[in-house]
Amino acid sequence: MAELDHLDKFFIQLDEPSLSIDLSKMSLSEGWLEPLLPALSQALEAMKELEAGSIANADEKRMVGHYWLRNSTLAPTKEISTQIENSITQVEQFSEKILTGEIASKGGKFKNVLIAGIGGSALGPQLLSDCFWDLNPKSLNFYFCDNTDPDGISRTLEKLKNELAQTLVFVVSKSGGTRETFNASKEIEHAYTAQSLKFADSAVAITLEGSKLDQRAKNEDWLKTFYVWDWVGGRTSINSTVGLLPLALLGGNIREFLAGAASMDQLSRSASSAENPAALLAASWFVAGNGQGEKSLVVLPYKDRLLLTGRYLQQLVMESLGKKLNRSGKDVFQGISVFGNKGSTDQHAYIQQLRDGKNDFVANFIQVLQDKKDISSPSLEITPGITSGDYLQGFLLGTSQALSESKRQSYLITLDKLTEKSLGALLALYERAVGLYAELVDVNAYNQPGVEAGKKAANKVLEIQEAIQKQLLTKDTAEFTAEELAVEIGIKPQSETVYWILEHLAQNERGLKKIAQAKPSKTQYKVER
Amino acid sequence: MAELDHLDKFFIQLDEPSLSIDLSKMSLSEGWLEPLLPALSQALEAMKELEAGSIANADEKRMVGHYWLRNSTLAPTKEISTQIENSITQVEQFSEKILTGEIASKGGKFKNVLIAGIGGSALGPQLLSDCFWDLNPKSLNFYFCDNTDPDGISRTLEKLKNELAQTLVFVVSKSGGTRETFNASKEIEHAYTAQSLKFADSAVAITLEGSKLDQRAKNEDWLKTFYVWDWVGGRTSINSTVGLLPLALLGGNIREFLAGAASMDQLSRSASSAENPAALLAASWFVAGNGQGEKSLVVLPYKDRLLLTGRYLQQLVMESLGKKLNRSGKDVFQGISVFGNKGSTDQHAYIQQLRDGKNDFVANFIQVLQDKKDISSPSLEITPGITSGDYLQGFLLGTSQALSESKRQSYLITLDKLTEKSLGALLALYERAVGLYAELVDVNAYNQPGVEAGKKAANKVLEIQEAIQKQLLTKDTAEFTAEELAVEIGIKPQSETVYWILEHLAQNERGLKKIAQAKPSKTQYKVER
Repeated sequence: MAELDHLDKFFIQLDEPSLSIDLSKMSLSEGWLEPLLPALSQALEAMKELEAGSIANADEKRMVGHYWLRNSTLAPTKEISTQIENSITQVEQFSEKILTGEIASKGGKFKNVLIAGIGGSALGPQLLSDCFWDLNPKSLNFYFCDNTDPDGISRTLEKLKNELAQTLVFVVSKSGGTRETFNASKEIEHAYTAQSLKFADSAVAITLEGSKLDQRAKNEDWLKTFYVWDWVGGRTSINSTVGLLPLALLGGNIREFLAGAASMDQLSRSASSAENPAALLAASWFVAGNGQGEKSLVVLPYKDRLLLTGRYLQQLVMESLGKKLNRSGKDVFQGISVFGNKGSTDQHAYIQQLRDGKNDFVANFIQVLQDKKDISSPSLEITPGITSGDYLQGFLLGTSQALSESKRQSYLITLDKLTEKSLGALLALYERAVGLYAELVDVNAYNQPGVEAGKKAANKVLEIQEAIQKQLLTKDTAEFTAEELAVEIGIKPQSETVYWILEHLAQNERGLKKIAQAKPSKTQYKVER
Repeated sequence: MAELDHLDKFFIQLDEPSLSIDLSKMSLSEGWLEPLLPALSQALEAMKELEAGSIANADEKRMVGHYWLRNSTLAPTKEISTQIENSITQVEQFSEKILTGEIASKGGKFKNVLIAGIGGSALGPQLLSDCFWDLNPKSLNFYFCDNTDPDGISRTLEKLKNELAQTLVFVVSKSGGTRETFNASKEIEHAYTAQSLKFADSAVAITLEGSKLDQRAKNEDWLKTFYVWDWVGGRTSINSTVGLLPLALLGGNIREFLAGAASMDQLSRSASSAENPAALLAASWFVAGNGQGEKSLVVLPYKDRLLLTGRYLQQLVMESLGKKLNRSGKDVFQGISVFGNKGSTDQHAYIQQLRDGKNDFVANFIQVLQDKKDISSPSLEITPGITSGDYLQGFLLGTSQALSESKRQSYLITLDKLTEKSLGALLALYERAVGLYAELVDVNAYNQPGVEAGKKAANKVLEIQEAIQKQLLTKDTAEFTAEELAVEIGIKPQSETVYWILEHLAQNERGLKKIAQAKPSKTQYKVER
């Protein structure tokens, strides 16, 4: 038998862009796919219906349309396909004007983009700007406020303080009501105002038509608003304006990015699962984790530019698959955990556990064959004939070999080079694999019912804080405990929340002083005006 | 019963620096600790012996001395304690001279530090520079080459190209032979030489005395060499020169950092496990994961500055605990997976799975009560009386509440403020918890035998590449496959490795052209000179 037969059998290739998937180091026996074929056929059928505009996100009664973004002819109505095409053209036109300086601020040509966004509104743009920072000498520099940490927001604003006038601000929130993003936008606006700059002249909204954010942008006459649609989920919004606009301002070719995704979509529509890369990937996850997510996915791109791929896929996979109920309403507690940064760096962090410890993961190796964008300028040879990039590949191949020897599974995705097109295809591969896997385990990949509880509970905390602050106004300087205060407000069962809020207020010297460090029930505070 | 009684019971406080641990949302019953007390006593006894200089890392026949770094009086010999004290003084003196410009390059005062290091030689400095970037207006700016990716190294060098003359380079490798670090140092040296700058004048080695790197620094007359010791492991080296020097150049107070760790050490030496924070933490991991690491640790600091805590702890925990064998040589396949970035950002990425999906984790919430370093400058109020920081706390408390309601476990570590001292204590807490947990499951927390296999396999790949390149020199322009070439070299079983090396060489146009895209066994190449 030829040595490469095994590799051949588990190898699948996309030609344009050139991207291969090698599943030969998954523990897959001859005929492994057979038992899954009926379920896969059904999954592919469901994907077809989804692409045709079915209400695939049944809980939220929404179509799921991110695949139309890269092939608008698929969209179920002419209206939607026109909207998609128009949005692409708008992004191109707007970004061209920004890059040439036709649209400029009073401070001159825009040099920077500051994105206020979180989750799906930040991870894609962060990944893109980390991948493609050097596509074009005219590229804008990217900064992010992806949290409601005032200290973190200050840090970003500090970096930009001398260039705010040349900084374009994107406020990205599909619903328009994302609290962290709203807060960040307010802090940013405040920084503009403090410098007597008109925030609205630099502000761009990306949101649903008619949202609060849309209203605000209209009322305040922001520079521009781009719309997204309710049939695009945050975690799959990178092919919408959310990702396209940043990519265009990085000097990237957004049509190539879309074309790469479209190519992968096309190949992954194959009804023959054995030739369908997304079906194979989903099936291999299913087999590895017994359909119960028993193996985490450890994402290891051997390429610094792809450092954020693990975080990006963490959201895509975990938010899509981490579900309590299946679609019949039965408790299933599904999910697949995802983590990982980059190789070979992570080898020095936790390959020890991967190789020797709990065998509870599948390693997702990603290699990019072309070491540098400009191959005409030769790489430094560390020893004669051997470059740093050869070592990088050596560590990847060596590690996958070593894991395989200790019966740890992995697969290898290879890109010839990292381009808009190949990244588009790579992300589409995971999107489709996630969609198919969700069908295999019968969960809705497109909702996120578990996220609301935390938000509601957070609002409750803020209400308690307001009640506390109101109550503190009535108090003299006598000492009190958290529980005593909670009783006064009539929320004794929330004493613990009251305790933490008091700790926070006191530490920030907001009218309150802690006067004794003790166990929470005994800690005393007093008002200090 | 008072509402705070439950919290009181699972609450432990370190006063200086002020740091508390709240285990009340772990599923711990009254008397939960009882059954573990004998094992914990033994673990604490073993920790005592380790601190007294026993050969705690038996496989490598080494003492484990990172606890001495923050209290040199503990060191088993006068010689070691003098070395520790001297190294602290050296760091202070050297960094003072750098910060004042007494030591400068021909380009003037040093403005930047570029660290070539990986794993334990990079993660600590990265965490420190991300936490403490604004301690002092004189602080140096930090850059990292933490991989052997030529493209990634170029990116960092591109950022520094106009300031190389004012950039101090630390080459950090305990063994002195870490390949990624060596390669990065060579690429950096090359960049200096290309600008006619003398690399040696900017180069600082941090390594074991007598290592290859020590020799190189001596031979090439580098600016300075700092030594580390074989009794400090990479993943616990942040209190050695590896971490202290960066912290000092950030303008940080290294003695405070050490003092914070020493305080936590002191509290965590308590023979009463119920009052020992590290013992409680280790015991809670043990109970949650049935002593088998069945729950991952999801690290969620609600503080942008602590973003890298998850990556730092990922190494500390996984490399320490991810072991095949227990200390009697029996297969145990231990380990605890660690991941996480920051809150509330990660809520928008995967809280869906945490709350609803597989219940296979413990959330490690970390809060910092003081919102900003300078509390005298008030935070922006988003709505009257409510700041971004209030929302940040609201999301934390709300999320921990929501997780608890769906029976997901978490604990909360609270720092009054983020300082050198409190970070020192926080990291020491995890170091000691890891050490004690390793005792509970009877593994050596201080070796990493699984890392070598990947390195050896990587060297093998490089050897194969050299053989390929030699063979290619003898070839005419006839076409060949990977397997045919492997047979020529006499390594047919390595055909797969040959295939990937040829793909890499061809894609970088290094004397080879791929002439047909096909399954790996059929893909053809030819030499192109």
